[in-house]
Amino acid sequence: MQAVGMIAEFNPFHSGHAFALAKARNLTHADVVVVVMSGNYVQRGEPAIFDKWVRAEAALTHGADIVIELPVTGAVQAADQFAQAGVSALAALHVSALAFGTEHPELDYLDLARQLVATDITDPGFADYTQTYATQLNAAYAKVAGITQTDPNFMLGLSYAKAVLALQVPMQLYPFGRQGVGHDDQKIKANLASASAVRQHLREGEPVTGIVPADLISVYAEQPQYGWSQFFPWLKYRLQTADLAELRQVATMAEGLEYRFTQQIDGAHDMTEFLHRVKSKRYTYARLRRLALAITLNMTTAAVTKARHLPQLHVLGFTPTGRQYLRTVKHHLAYPLLTRVSADMLAPYGVLAMTHRADRLITAIGGVEQNYGRPPLM
Amino acid sequence: MQAVGMIAEFNPFHSGHAFALAKARNLTHADVVVVVMSGNYVQRGEPAIFDKWVRAEAALTHGADIVIELPVTGAVQAADQFAQAGVSALAALHVSALAFGTEHPELDYLDLARQLVATDITDPGFADYTQTYATQLNAAYAKVAGITQTDPNFMLGLSYAKAVLALQVPMQLYPFGRQGVGHDDQKIKANLASASAVRQHLREGEPVTGIVPADLISVYAEQPQYGWSQFFPWLKYRLQTADLAELRQVATMAEGLEYRFTQQIDGAHDMTEFLHRVKSKRYTYARLRRLALAITLNMTTAAVTKARHLPQLHVLGFTPTGRQYLRTVKHHLAYPLLTRVSADMLAPYGVLAMTHRADRLITAIGGVEQNYGRPPLM
Repeated sequence: MQAVGMIAEFNPFHSGHAFALAKARNLTHADVVVVVMSGNYVQRGEPAIFDKWVRAEAALTHGADIVIELPVTGAVQAADQFAQAGVSALAALHVSALAFGTEHPELDYLDLARQLVATDITDPGFADYTQTYATQLNAAYAKVAGITQTDPNFMLGLSYAKAVLALQVPMQLYPFGRQGVGHDDQKIKANLASASAVRQHLREGEPVTGIVPADLISVYAEQPQYGWSQFFPWLKYRLQTADLAELRQVATMAEGLEYRFTQQIDGAHDMTEFLHRVKSKRYTYARLRRLALAITLNMTTAAVTKARHLPQLHVLGFTPTGRQYLRTVKHHLAYPLLTRVSADMLAPYGVLAMTHRADRLITAIGGVEQNYGRPPLM
Repeated sequence: MQAVGMIAEFNPFHSGHAFALAKARNLTHADVVVVVMSGNYVQRGEPAIFDKWVRAEAALTHGADIVIELPVTGAVQAADQFAQAGVSALAALHVSALAFGTEHPELDYLDLARQLVATDITDPGFADYTQTYATQLNAAYAKVAGITQTDPNFMLGLSYAKAVLALQVPMQLYPFGRQGVGHDDQKIKANLASASAVRQHLREGEPVTGIVPADLISVYAEQPQYGWSQFFPWLKYRLQTADLAELRQVATMAEGLEYRFTQQIDGAHDMTEFLHRVKSKRYTYARLRRLALAITLNMTTAAVTKARHLPQLHVLGFTPTGRQYLRTVKHHLAYPLLTRVSADMLAPYGVLAMTHRADRLITAIGGVEQNYGRPPLM
């Protein structure tokens, strides 16, 4: 069976995602579409608006055949680490084609990545404290490979290509335009509202008709929503009581931010206010938000390292076609395939300990168990 | 000037406390009554119902001349450690008389303590896992010194005596009956409702007329109240996200309780329910509540050790007589006398870092700054 992979967040799943899944299938003539999807926390540093099961189900009923969880240790990371976690999961599942939407489908991403790798500036640790890391990275890219684009999906595509090179996995890239082509351009474009706009509509209780597949509208209306408004009190408490040494153990902590965070938290009443207080020229909002989330989840460097050394493929669901594919590959997988989560895995030293730690907060808010004993969606 | 000391919590200050302060003064013919009072957290493992400034002010207007804060690292401890923290603060202030109410004022506490120390059973580390530490201690006391009393104030008096011996400080003990004597027995007895009963009345909005000095009734009515209902969500969050290794660093943690606590928290909706779930024959409710509070405050063994090595005398307030006394002793004090708290002291490595950590939560709830820049009450 021919498989194509996608790395996604579906936060939440909307019409543009359905279009992308169909595009990936058509472009590669694949029999099966395998998605590695962020679990309950996403790359921009916040809980996904709906839990991972709701989002996986939406994907499975709109074009995906298999949904595998991208664990929090891989999802709440800068683009390069996020991409590596996704690519390595797909490769472990013997998927050798990766499709992704981008503003620039005409470029050769692997070739660009090779130029960057050859000049060794993929992770330069820039020392200019007056600019964000992203700004400096873009400048270096422009210098080395003539890359002057900074569109987010283009940058993510480049991260996928770099991950393929770094991991040395056989993976062909299939970039595609994010807008539709042909006669119904207009209509599809209208449907391609960003996930961010969909979230805003949902949070404010406004209708999402036309931008979300019709059958999902009533599903979304009934689901508990998650966001920083619920997590901020925990962040505040944690910053007020944590030891500096403990904060330094949190993944993605950078020198000095532990002081800045603990000093600025007292007067902040919500996440927006807090981020404004800690913002500097050196760090983007996304970077700071991810760090704040890592603190709230107590996602330590040790937990991230452990997850990298003991990768798991937690199956959230599959279609009959997806099941068939899993049967063909399941005996020669690089990582364990988890179809039912046991108490052992969730225990403090279990392989899913960090996922459990993070997901307990989702359960505490929404009352829905996220791991223990939950079978894959079929 | 002749000084008498008391170690107290005033949670909250009531008529019985006014009686005790007067009794201490009369019994010792003291010019000045020095109180070492628990700060915002008390020995039974919870926040005091009113903050330390409200309670200090009540004491200063009803018989105390000086109120010094017993820091959280000394207050939220078993009786022996609580007593040591209090006795050492009084001794540092050159107070050599300690008065305390007890069910058995006729006994010689120092003599009893000497018998216990001589037989080396003051901290026996009992190995019977089917009984609480307190029960086993009482049995040992009965065997060694014929002590069959287990009344709480008697036991605390014994802890004071043991602290005096352990610290080798010159301190005379003045036990007195907790009930009044003479013709107005009846009336005083009626006024001696326990602090626990007063708290219950206050929490339920019931009148405290007659059991609290009349002028305090309106004061109490206007103050924010603190309790486990506000702290429980923090405990729950912390237990759901803490690393076991982090929990093991919490002061008074005992082998195995970190598992029990993290396992039992998910289904608990309030502190009472949680305590029922974790209760065993081995530990008293007070012991478990203190541990839960230490976890919530992130009061680590390191923080307690540091506080013991760098003791401070934080002055919450004084009367003119109290001020006169402080003037006579301030140049030869064993510990620093803090009359105004600076930002340095509250900083992460400052001498009041743990106090600040704990008190930030009080400020987060009640909106009243507890340390920075607050002068002593006069």
